[in-house]
Amino acid sequence: MTAHPRLSLNQATIKYADLSEAIAATVDAGYSSIGLWREPVQGRGLGRSIREIEDSGLRVSSLCRGGFFTMADGPERRSSIDDNRRAIAEASALGAPTLVLVAGGLPAGSKDIVGARERVRDAIGELADDAAAAGVTLAIEPLHPMYASDRAVVSTLGQALDIAEQFPLGVTAVVVDTFHVWWDPQLFEQIARAGGRIASYQVCDWSTPLPADVLLARHYPGDGVIDFASISAAVEAAGYTGDIEVEIFNKEIWEDTYANVAARTRDAFAAAVAPHVSAGAGTGALVRL
Amino acid sequence: MTAHPRLSLNQATIKYADLSEAIAATVDAGYSSIGLWREPVQGRGLGRSIREIEDSGLRVSSLCRGGFFTMADGPERRSSIDDNRRAIAEASALGAPTLVLVAGGLPAGSKDIVGARERVRDAIGELADDAAAAGVTLAIEPLHPMYASDRAVVSTLGQALDIAEQFPLGVTAVVVDTFHVWWDPQLFEQIARAGGRIASYQVCDWSTPLPADVLLARHYPGDGVIDFASISAAVEAAGYTGDIEVEIFNKEIWEDTYANVAARTRDAFAAAVAPHVSAGAGTGALVRL
Repeated sequence: MTAHPRLSLNQATIKYADLSEAIAATVDAGYSSIGLWREPVQGRGLGRSIREIEDSGLRVSSLCRGGFFTMADGPERRSSIDDNRRAIAEASALGAPTLVLVAGGLPAGSKDIVGARERVRDAIGELADDAAAAGVTLAIEPLHPMYASDRAVVSTLGQALDIAEQFPLGVTAVVVDTFHVWWDPQLFEQIARAGGRIASYQVCDWSTPLPADVLLARHYPGDGVIDFASISAAVEAAGYTGDIEVEIFNKEIWEDTYANVAARTRDAFAAAVAPHVSAGAGTGALVRL
Repeated sequence: MTAHPRLSLNQATIKYADLSEAIAATVDAGYSSIGLWREPVQGRGLGRSIREIEDSGLRVSSLCRGGFFTMADGPERRSSIDDNRRAIAEASALGAPTLVLVAGGLPAGSKDIVGARERVRDAIGELADDAAAAGVTLAIEPLHPMYASDRAVVSTLGQALDIAEQFPLGVTAVVVDTFHVWWDPQLFEQIARAGGRIASYQVCDWSTPLPADVLLARHYPGDGVIDFASISAAVEAAGYTGDIEVEIFNKEIWEDTYANVAARTRDAFAAAVAPHVSAGAGTGALVRL
């Protein structure tokens, strides 16, 4: 069975798979695209990862992730910026058009969320030229406000756009992840505002009660309360035609077999999301050699 | 030791206390104001509750809570509207200037958060005349977006104001609860916009990791990451001079003695919040006989 042409399996959905296992599960389930994470790529080695991706014929929809640069200037911040430069280079080498950025939470002991947000903007300012030169789009991902203190001080699409719009189109953009933004009363106006600034559309579902670890609260599309019809239509109307990733952090799903997860993701997407999106073009580039 | 003249102990902070115990703990710890909940008032009976409050000399800063009216029209919705009318009458009888409204989550099986929000506005429209006649302000409380599906489809202060501003000043207003709104990038502009629409300021703190039940994630002011200085200054600048409630849902705090909790709340407020607010006037009215 073939997956929807725009569907991409984000590697975090099968978190325990190494790169080769993730590629195999993705190809075997009929996908044409995969979203990569840095850790398994580094585990395999960048050169070998590039060859494995090339051999698989898969597009790379995005590389997760950069960011985590809310700290004040000093060695820790310099180290983060340098690491983000390496992430840009890795994305470029892997043919990922997009590097996903998660802002980072409040620095230890800080209560200054306003200052932390300014430092996110400043960090992206430092990285923009590198990203432009590498042909990689920096995609700022707003995370659900329940992660505002420990993971991402950028919580809304509007806030991500406020930053992204300070830099050239194509260099900075945003991620629309249904899990993070579905609740936002300004969602539809901000998706429309985003237009060509949408570099990634990610889908998974929200349901309650939340698990003990709220990081693992995501579900297959259709298993929760998110209205994929209206959000997908808005993202389409904004002009986004690229790959659509399913990225699920969920302990039970992680403990399932990779083949099962890839198949269930494909089928859930077909039922809950595919009716509301075009066949599209796919923005994940083939590996540049 | 006397509590800050504007400090009010919300009864939910000592959830297991019955009304008499709650009043005693509040008076003994030197407070002049208490925030009541309907269930313990009903447990004591409205008439007796009024007399006990009157005898205590405490102001009633607010009554919690009405709302939960997101369902489509039908018997369940009629029942909810009727119950809210009773809540307005109880607030008036208790001398509470404000009835706190929590919107309610998505109706079972629904994915239509936009429609649910419209029904919140419509319900408040049905109740506005009753509230005006009773001299009770309906205060819409935006809840943290992590409760959007199961508890409150009103998630931001801006959204609460969009509803409140459709009705006369004094009839509808908003609650600013630091726990729910601290993360909002539009917080300060919305507090300024709110002006005289702020009917209640509630303070407690946010810290991570969140507990297994995210309903119980609140902490004493100062024990988390919220910047009470800037938020309190903004609420002051907006013109709010009324009581400030501490409302904490936290299992460990609930299991402490009422006297300890009342004292720790008083002292935490004195350290973390009091330096940033005026002595104020207190809006909690005395019981009207």
